[in-house]
Amino acid sequence: MNNINIGLLGCGTVGAGVARILLDNKDLITSRVGATLTLKRVADIDITTDRGLRFESGVLTTDAREVINDPEIDIVVEMIGGETVAREFIFAAIENGKQIVTANKALLAAHGNALFMAAAQKGVDLAFEASVGGCMPIIKTLRESLVGNRIHAMIGILNGTCNYILSKITDDGRPFSEALAQAQSKGYAEADPALDIEGRDTAHKIAILSALAYGMEINLHDVYTEGISHITPMDIEFAGQFGYKIKLLAISKFKENAVEARVHPTMIPVDNMLSNVNGTLNAITVSADAVDEIMLYGRGAGMMPTASAVVGDLVDISRNLIMGATARVPLLSFQSNQIRKIPIRPISDIITHYYLRFSALDKPGVLSTISGILGKYGISIKTAYQKGRKMNGSVPLVMLTHTAKEASAIKALNEIASLDVVSARPIMIRIEDENNDD
Amino acid sequence: MNNINIGLLGCGTVGAGVARILLDNKDLITSRVGATLTLKRVADIDITTDRGLRFESGVLTTDAREVINDPEIDIVVEMIGGETVAREFIFAAIENGKQIVTANKALLAAHGNALFMAAAQKGVDLAFEASVGGCMPIIKTLRESLVGNRIHAMIGILNGTCNYILSKITDDGRPFSEALAQAQSKGYAEADPALDIEGRDTAHKIAILSALAYGMEINLHDVYTEGISHITPMDIEFAGQFGYKIKLLAISKFKENAVEARVHPTMIPVDNMLSNVNGTLNAITVSADAVDEIMLYGRGAGMMPTASAVVGDLVDISRNLIMGATARVPLLSFQSNQIRKIPIRPISDIITHYYLRFSALDKPGVLSTISGILGKYGISIKTAYQKGRKMNGSVPLVMLTHTAKEASAIKALNEIASLDVVSARPIMIRIEDENNDD
Repeated sequence: MNNINIGLLGCGTVGAGVARILLDNKDLITSRVGATLTLKRVADIDITTDRGLRFESGVLTTDAREVINDPEIDIVVEMIGGETVAREFIFAAIENGKQIVTANKALLAAHGNALFMAAAQKGVDLAFEASVGGCMPIIKTLRESLVGNRIHAMIGILNGTCNYILSKITDDGRPFSEALAQAQSKGYAEADPALDIEGRDTAHKIAILSALAYGMEINLHDVYTEGISHITPMDIEFAGQFGYKIKLLAISKFKENAVEARVHPTMIPVDNMLSNVNGTLNAITVSADAVDEIMLYGRGAGMMPTASAVVGDLVDISRNLIMGATARVPLLSFQSNQIRKIPIRPISDIITHYYLRFSALDKPGVLSTISGILGKYGISIKTAYQKGRKMNGSVPLVMLTHTAKEASAIKALNEIASLDVVSARPIMIRIEDENNDD
Repeated sequence: MNNINIGLLGCGTVGAGVARILLDNKDLITSRVGATLTLKRVADIDITTDRGLRFESGVLTTDAREVINDPEIDIVVEMIGGETVAREFIFAAIENGKQIVTANKALLAAHGNALFMAAAQKGVDLAFEASVGGCMPIIKTLRESLVGNRIHAMIGILNGTCNYILSKITDDGRPFSEALAQAQSKGYAEADPALDIEGRDTAHKIAILSALAYGMEINLHDVYTEGISHITPMDIEFAGQFGYKIKLLAISKFKENAVEARVHPTMIPVDNMLSNVNGTLNAITVSADAVDEIMLYGRGAGMMPTASAVVGDLVDISRNLIMGATARVPLLSFQSNQIRKIPIRPISDIITHYYLRFSALDKPGVLSTISGILGKYGISIKTAYQKGRKMNGSVPLVMLTHTAKEASAIKALNEIASLDVVSARPIMIRIEDENNDD
């Protein structure tokens, strides 16, 4: 087998990047693979826009079905996105015995269990390296490199838009809305940024990674998800005073036969490697029994980095086709019959450190009232800090706590919020500080 | 094929780690691979020492040939080290049609071309992820994930001993000899530390990676190699004043049909991710056309991290055996017939920035004499800094240069060294600062 035929569905940003790599680096890829990867068909609704790609005549079509049903196509690359036609086309391509490559994390997070089951039953590969972390090879690392390890935890910065916005607030001290506008003007955020800034894109990714790491079914529904729109320059500044940075983290841990899988703004020590991941860059650390901890770092999005991951998948599958070794690596890292439903712990059950900020009237007894309520719920204060002094006005009162159960923290905050001397909803930001686990 | 038989040659630190993972995580590995990896034979000169491993009777032997010649053994793991018997055993095992896993970078750097050719001719796998960067999956990333990319450069911290020593000098301001003694007392440096501190271990690794990245034969001989024993707290302190850290870097670049491959202490900006890699940790960045830059970070040595990489290789090969897909990925990343001799540029031809430190008598005209000589060889000074003032005594005179050809820098330094007003051999440390390429 010295030629592999590829059909591309969707020639938007990443799709065009895939086409560009396959065309520009064709000889290089052949010299590595020993076979030619030919982009035989490209389907897109819009086939008139010039993408700077020179396709031979007959390659472009507006009809995805032409690609899926072409008996000469070996691998179908789904680059359409979304959960409707993309899903339909992937199922149809599996049914036709095509190998599949996709970067569609939203689709996999929502419908991955059914898609992977269909692919496994048909005995085809369904590769998805580009769905998480762009060019960082986190899927391959989990499925292949760490295969001898029991994986304990993963902590990642997996959304470049959010990381850019938080980096901007940190560096320039401007409010969230201005940082978002800047991200949009630079093309780092969509016109409708909700999927990114509400943390949902990150949740899709950690749902997929958790399945791979622990041998569980994909469970997006139970991933706790909190966005970054409430993060203020003031909280970032306080974080800095305590030696922390604020990042939107995807956190996944396996403990006592249950999984923690959560996405929220988090304070991490400035000397943590993740603290130095700035701008649109992504990174993920994996903790496991043999390796201790490893980190991958790189561009988590963008045309060419994401396309690089897609081409890596195309070559993996091509090598399988050449050797007659399709489905060589189990799709979700574990053998299908070993994948369990592992419960994700409700956020109310997690135990962590907290940063709390209260807007409290500067009156005698306020600190004692607030700390009394915290104490009643078993939350002990490690550091308290009150900024400025304003007669009869509000001042920020900031506290770092020892570890506490989230349910208790929420109850305490609700009680504190109802006090007359507290003038705004208290702010709570979780802290991830492994060197300080008390 | 639901069982793979493994034979281990050498049960020292890493060998014992491999055995431990295969025994302790046996069920986990089976649930991922769908077949059992059985450690059938273990050969070591010493089979009486208790390694805390419970082998069944008949597993241990003192005779490596028993393992290599056992027809039931599928994969031979060479964990002996060195270039004599290890080489002989690997050739014999290839001859017997065994698949091979090794972590032996010294052997591969010196004899890899012949070993890989023998394996390719026999059609067996020869896996070596553990030879570079411990648990960081750099070999897999180069051979598989980045397969669509043209690789431009790699910069790595690939020796934990050197990184520990340089971190110690940086943090504590103690001289090299004390930092080395501390590394030895902690078990991070060998009693004979030459292989590490002279940079040779790092050279082995970058020779292997360069071959994989650019499709060239392994060429250890031409890798320029300079160690860290001349690095002083004073130079590290000056580096800090200019916003740099000093790391022992492996640098490999592909430019104009030739390769730069060099190992030496290097100043890098403090905000470079590699500057934050401290202690015994390793990291490597890869620059390539599609991904821009990615970095891997983790434990580059040690019993369990290295064993993790070996087990990753064992599973890769097992999956190939199960599918009848041996030699699925070309051993040196490119098809054998595509591997060329690419010249490595002599160090005298490289062009970079330099940090120079002179011990000069504090007399009128010295600065002008020294800068005059530098100017004569085309080396232009970006910053000059003279510390203290000592009548008729020596003071350190420090300069950062714009880019210059190394041959010119050496000539200038030789001329300066011969001046009466210069009291010690000038210090030259190369600077790697991509944001400052003038």
